[in-house]
Amino acid sequence: MACNTLVDITTLSPKFQELYAKAKDFVENECIPAEPLFAAQMGQGDQRWKVIPPVIEDLKKKARSLGLWNLFLGRDYAEGAGLTNLEYSLIAELTGRCPHLAPESMNCSAPDTGNMEVFAKYGNEAQKKKWLEPLLQGKIRSAFAMTEKRVASSDATNIETSIVRNGNEYVINGLKWWISGAGDPRCAVYLVMGKTDPNNKNPHRQQSIIIVPAGTPGVTVVRPMHVFGYDDAPEGHCEIVFKDVRVPLENMVLGEGRGFEIIQGRLGPGRIHHCMRSIGMAERALEYMMARVTDPSRRTFGKYLYEHGTIVADIAKSRMDIDQARFMVLNAAKRIDQVKAKGAMKEIGMAKAIVPTMLLTVLDRAMQAHGAAGISQDFPLARWYASGRTLRYADGPDEVHIAQIGKVELRRAEGIKQQFEKRDNASAKLLAQNKPKL
Amino acid sequence: MACNTLVDITTLSPKFQELYAKAKDFVENECIPAEPLFAAQMGQGDQRWKVIPPVIEDLKKKARSLGLWNLFLGRDYAEGAGLTNLEYSLIAELTGRCPHLAPESMNCSAPDTGNMEVFAKYGNEAQKKKWLEPLLQGKIRSAFAMTEKRVASSDATNIETSIVRNGNEYVINGLKWWISGAGDPRCAVYLVMGKTDPNNKNPHRQQSIIIVPAGTPGVTVVRPMHVFGYDDAPEGHCEIVFKDVRVPLENMVLGEGRGFEIIQGRLGPGRIHHCMRSIGMAERALEYMMARVTDPSRRTFGKYLYEHGTIVADIAKSRMDIDQARFMVLNAAKRIDQVKAKGAMKEIGMAKAIVPTMLLTVLDRAMQAHGAAGISQDFPLARWYASGRTLRYADGPDEVHIAQIGKVELRRAEGIKQQFEKRDNASAKLLAQNKPKL
Amino acid sequence: MACNTLVDITTLSPKFQELYAKAKDFVENECIPAEPLFAAQMGQGDQRWKVIPPVIEDLKKKARSLGLWNLFLGRDYAEGAGLTNLEYSLIAELTGRCPHLAPESMNCSAPDTGNMEVFAKYGNEAQKKKWLEPLLQGKIRSAFAMTEKRVASSDATNIETSIVRNGNEYVINGLKWWISGAGDPRCAVYLVMGKTDPNNKNPHRQQSIIIVPAGTPGVTVVRPMHVFGYDDAPEGHCEIVFKDVRVPLENMVLGEGRGFEIIQGRLGPGRIHHCMRSIGMAERALEYMMARVTDPSRRTFGKYLYEHGTIVADIAKSRMDIDQARFMVLNAAKRIDQVKAKGAMKEIGMAKAIVPTMLLTVLDRAMQAHGAAGISQDFPLARWYASGRTLRYADGPDEVHIAQIGKVELRRAEGIKQQFEKRDNASAKLLAQNKPKL
Amino acid sequence: MACNTLVDITTLSPKFQELYAKAKDFVENECIPAEPLFAAQMGQGDQRWKVIPPVIEDLKKKARSLGLWNLFLGRDYAEGAGLTNLEYSLIAELTGRCPHLAPESMNCSAPDTGNMEVFAKYGNEAQKKKWLEPLLQGKIRSAFAMTEKRVASSDATNIETSIVRNGNEYVINGLKWWISGAGDPRCAVYLVMGKTDPNNKNPHRQQSIIIVPAGTPGVTVVRPMHVFGYDDAPEGHCEIVFKDVRVPLENMVLGEGRGFEIIQGRLGPGRIHHCMRSIGMAERALEYMMARVTDPSRRTFGKYLYEHGTIVADIAKSRMDIDQARFMVLNAAKRIDQVKAKGAMKEIGMAKAIVPTMLLTVLDRAMQAHGAAGISQDFPLARWYASGRTLRYADGPDEVHIAQIGKVELRRAEGIKQQFEKRDNASAKLLAQNKPKL
Repeated sequence: MACNTLVDITTLSPKFQELYAKAKDFVENECIPAEPLFAAQMGQGDQRWKVIPPVIEDLKKKARSLGLWNLFLGRDYAEGAGLTNLEYSLIAELTGRCPHLAPESMNCSAPDTGNMEVFAKYGNEAQKKKWLEPLLQGKIRSAFAMTEKRVASSDATNIETSIVRNGNEYVINGLKWWISGAGDPRCAVYLVMGKTDPNNKNPHRQQSIIIVPAGTPGVTVVRPMHVFGYDDAPEGHCEIVFKDVRVPLENMVLGEGRGFEIIQGRLGPGRIHHCMRSIGMAERALEYMMARVTDPSRRTFGKYLYEHGTIVADIAKSRMDIDQARFMVLNAAKRIDQVKAKGAMKEIGMAKAIVPTMLLTVLDRAMQAHGAAGISQDFPLARWYASGRTLRYADGPDEVHIAQIGKVELRRAEGIKQQFEKRDNASAKLLAQNKPKL
Repeated sequence: MACNTLVDITTLSPKFQELYAKAKDFVENECIPAEPLFAAQMGQGDQRWKVIPPVIEDLKKKARSLGLWNLFLGRDYAEGAGLTNLEYSLIAELTGRCPHLAPESMNCSAPDTGNMEVFAKYGNEAQKKKWLEPLLQGKIRSAFAMTEKRVASSDATNIETSIVRNGNEYVINGLKWWISGAGDPRCAVYLVMGKTDPNNKNPHRQQSIIIVPAGTPGVTVVRPMHVFGYDDAPEGHCEIVFKDVRVPLENMVLGEGRGFEIIQGRLGPGRIHHCMRSIGMAERALEYMMARVTDPSRRTFGKYLYEHGTIVADIAKSRMDIDQARFMVLNAAKRIDQVKAKGAMKEIGMAKAIVPTMLLTVLDRAMQAHGAAGISQDFPLARWYASGRTLRYADGPDEVHIAQIGKVELRRAEGIKQQFEKRDNASAKLLAQNKPKL
Repeated sequence: MACNTLVDITTLSPKFQELYAKAKDFVENECIPAEPLFAAQMGQGDQRWKVIPPVIEDLKKKARSLGLWNLFLGRDYAEGAGLTNLEYSLIAELTGRCPHLAPESMNCSAPDTGNMEVFAKYGNEAQKKKWLEPLLQGKIRSAFAMTEKRVASSDATNIETSIVRNGNEYVINGLKWWISGAGDPRCAVYLVMGKTDPNNKNPHRQQSIIIVPAGTPGVTVVRPMHVFGYDDAPEGHCEIVFKDVRVPLENMVLGEGRGFEIIQGRLGPGRIHHCMRSIGMAERALEYMMARVTDPSRRTFGKYLYEHGTIVADIAKSRMDIDQARFMVLNAAKRIDQVKAKGAMKEIGMAKAIVPTMLLTVLDRAMQAHGAAGISQDFPLARWYASGRTLRYADGPDEVHIAQIGKVELRRAEGIKQQFEKRDNASAKLLAQNKPKL
Repeated sequence: MACNTLVDITTLSPKFQELYAKAKDFVENECIPAEPLFAAQMGQGDQRWKVIPPVIEDLKKKARSLGLWNLFLGRDYAEGAGLTNLEYSLIAELTGRCPHLAPESMNCSAPDTGNMEVFAKYGNEAQKKKWLEPLLQGKIRSAFAMTEKRVASSDATNIETSIVRNGNEYVINGLKWWISGAGDPRCAVYLVMGKTDPNNKNPHRQQSIIIVPAGTPGVTVVRPMHVFGYDDAPEGHCEIVFKDVRVPLENMVLGEGRGFEIIQGRLGPGRIHHCMRSIGMAERALEYMMARVTDPSRRTFGKYLYEHGTIVADIAKSRMDIDQARFMVLNAAKRIDQVKAKGAMKEIGMAKAIVPTMLLTVLDRAMQAHGAAGISQDFPLARWYASGRTLRYADGPDEVHIAQIGKVELRRAEGIKQQFEKRDNASAKLLAQNKPKL
């Protein structure tokens, strides 16, 4: 079991402990057992993109009735459930144990969470009423259209989509891809990033975020992108063409040129939620591994699997890898509570750099212990691996986070060198005072 | 470029060099450019399992006319092309660069290669005429049905499928899965492993291999297993039920109780072929990576990707990883030429333990450099990763190979300790003769 | 700087915060600047084993006057400073930054700490008066003589030293080595483990711990063992012959046959102290590294060292490695506070398995950034590396801890499998209730 | 045993095979058994720098009489033994098994080997007669004084030592350190690098190499640098002050401003020799490990050490690591034979980047299996570790080699991208010709 005395749930508020217990029960006894039914209710062929397995709505109702709803919206939001980031992180670990059902059941699934934050933080009243309200109710879903196919859009200054004001409308042209959730028949709205002022000397004032209702003429969902072999229907990660798409002026969020500011605000906590769900996924992977290696029907050459080679060591390493990573995530969450996401960039960056690789390592060991079954449709491990693999570049590739952490750390160098000099002086004085007599 | 002075192709026979040059040209200029056409010709939906893209037959004709045909069958086979294992390994590296088209085009693709070896080595004349002949012609395909769902069949003594003699027939009952190639409409025959004598005291004399023509009543192909999200249509890796399947007595290969002997003979060279194709795949992955990181359209924050962080180091490491692994494979291949597969078990085991992890590491770095595109259907990297991942347990998991290598190495311990003792005695004598004067 | 929001010192008691601040100031401004003087006062040649650099006594006086004395003795001891394990761990990180001066200055250095615990916990009043008293005063030093040369004494049942009762004396015969501190001229007493009852059927009742005053006839300190080329004078890690050594009956600790019980009690917290000091050492190594790579006089080919290759990534990784390891240690310390060492074996084992390798990795990166200077006597890095390397087998090798952690984790397997079964039943029921309509 | 079929010694010339067999016998049966005598004959205290253990001269006589002398000098040298680099590499692996005795016994030890090459390649007849002659006879030893204390002299343009012509003399001033061999009482001559023309616009024409006889007034050997705790007496790695040192004009090697050219020529093969000796050292470390883990007296908890945890896997990994690394070194050696060192820079760089880390990894595993004994003076493992650790920055740190390999590899990027474009065009044409009918 996870060794987590530093963040002892029994020391948190009784109200939270009760919520936590309810969430745990809901995930373990409602969501996880529903996974086979969800799979059975998935459509075949094209229907996979049109049918939402009904069990999802059942679970949503149940979660809502239990008060397990919109928990991601923290203390800063009137609409929120009032959890701290630390508290929500603990909940997110639970939902991560059943990643395809639990987050959505509790209306806490990406990308809706980030989009709701955008509407809540930057939307005007009309926008909130039209889009935030039904999102908070779990009646519609949404997508965030930023990544572009033809440029390296992880550097947002490279974005090419144009948003041109034309009379009382904006006209949008561009080619996006990897737009998660855009394949879902319930997806009602896109938040689209583009440039309203591509020649602005300040490269961070060129971009805007604009609301485009799904189905607006000129919007074509071209195809779902595959992650390893998975298309992740019905949500999907879609390639979308915006061709002379027209929306009214009031669809602009916050104002022209404020797009960069919005995406900055959208990040931060979200990264930690991904991380914490990954911890939950890793825990469940380790459980699968332990069940397998102690399964009498999997004995070979007269031994249980766990008695072979390095498997016990792999289990120990997974235990340690998970626990270490969890501390880094909880630490970042608590830091956000103290100084907001901006002040916790280093802690967030470290969690973001550590967790995805940890998750993949733990999953890989679990898959290896299962042999061929481990990478098949009969276990969720390979699918989680595929999904976890995206986290090594989503919201910035590992390399960028690591370089950034190094740079922040190096800011200490000057102070250290001054301290060294001070100490060297003190040492010299001591030596002079104590001429060695030997 | 690969640094491979130790095995200098220019020192091999002119005839082989010519063949090698033809194979290289065929793979680079015929097979690789045909990949998009192959994808376009793949069926949609259920048709994916029924339609073989016509380009395959075009390529087969071309390869055969060039003499690039059945090259896997080595010097020991009358039907073979007369290559040494070392030579064929070099060819296999080339075909590995285009793994979905080149091996099949040259009639060198698994599992047909291993099955042809079984027929050639152990089949009687009637069996050869009926099955080996059309396989050598590339007219039919085949499958090898060994792995079972309900037991850990990597230990062949666990196999449960029964083969019971009943009059002038054998009756087969069992549940197999991961039977590669069984989904292919051209798959005409299965070699099925089962037990004819489950109570034989010698656990290695219980098994037999029997020929089951596809379509025999009682054979049901239940479903394709998925590898990550890929079903690998049209070949597939299928779950198959054998329910009271009846075949005539002459379908027994080699004789009752000889199944274990046959699978032992089937391994060995095949492992090396997988390894060498993996080297070719890794080389091509590195090429994709280098093209990407020097692509001007992928610049971020004013720099080429290769100018960021640790990417140059990753390229260097991939270069070194590939070259080291190649030497291990070529060394094993040459060793097989010298002392047959049985004598080269240690060298084969080391190649088998090293190459798959190397391939996955190189692919992972290449995917990371591509961002989201790298794991999508727009590049072959993720698909190769999925396929390469199977090699870490196929033909024995890494753990088993590594433990085996360690055990073989430890056989030297006694000799070493005797040498230590001999040296200690010599040292003592020297010390006695040279009493230190200090 | 370390990111440690989870254990926020500002939330601990004001009294502890004050102590912590004093300790920090003492280590940084008194101990570290005294390192060169300590080196200058070290004797030359044989004198290295006879002269204790006088600066040590100066520092001890200062520490004692500041109340920084015997802090290792926790709440369970009347003589102790009353710190929790968590609190002392934070202090130990500070002293680890100056490992050759700070712990001894504060009378918190091994092996005296463990020995004082033995006397305090298991000694009778006379023993306490004679040995614990002067140890607590810092007037004498001590050694713990357990490890033997000729057997694998990490398994204490292998110990060969004999303790035979003869009249009103015990007679001790044995060959010990790696007896840390035995070279120190101030070392006044050994706690010696041996067998009083080698034929006892209970292998854990054969051993006893007996007090042997230094200088007792028959005790010969043969030589100091070297750690990488260091002899660690004046303390040393010595090989000692016990030849017909006679001590009075009252020197037995706790009673015959209780030796195993005593060493079990001696472990636990001590492991964590080593770990926490290692964190401090790793932090200081990282500081050396950062000073070096930003040193203008070390520029090559027109660049600062940190601008070359993978150095920034190495700094980031060290930052993350240290922070993760610290959490594991603090977690174990807090767990000991809650449930005693025996209940925290898993947490302690994980810290013990993680920290030494982390320390060596961070030191190695720092050495590499310094080039030749990094492994020389001009920096403490190589010496710390040598000392850190011993922690990978001291108090049990990594392999044993890792196997142990794996075994403990596997105890959960049965419960997990039951949960899986329960869930499978629930899933089956759900599927039955919702027959798919597709 | 090493698996090395690719470079099969039995296929090399009978003459070389005979030499190899003699060298093997000499190392195993003369050098290794003499190690304890060598240690016993080492002086104590200051004598360690004055006494050369007499056994060395005995071994030298024996080696010379066997024709095992100056084998490092290859085919390009009149004075050489006529071996190819590949052949000498195989010999160097043997001598690496006894690194403190075998190379010197066979007059093949650094830094003399590189210095002899300098004299042979760049010296005039008088210089050769005076210095090369006695070096080839093994009558004197020598040092190469390049590295400086105050600057990052791995970039030779940073060197500060001045060589100023003054009448018919040169006057040398500078501070060198890490001058290997300078502590040896037999060291008769230094090759000193300094700047004769510090203002030359071409930064590679500022340096010269000048001959300074040991004992020249103004030369002070300040201290030996330590490598971890080893001072490597009697050779040592010394800090040396050159203060107004005067030598005649004829002591200039090759001519003023040619220093850079000389050091470039001195590298290359030498790097490979270090690497190959490292392979031998790693093999012997693995032998120590295997003897230890099968030693009945080291059993714990009822098991041999090799039966615990991950030790068998560690042995297997060491076997694979060594074999892979050996191939890289032999490949580079053969490449040098084909195209000289300059043409083999990539192959040399890869061997240099791989081997030291491999050696340290193998040694570390062996030390771990020995527990405390492994890092003590009772086994050579820790000393070899210290010495192997220097190879990770000597002749260029790992980071530089890796970056360089990456850069060289990236030169292929343009060609690859052109090939991709060509293939894309071919693919497009194929698609156009075969409009999919589906």
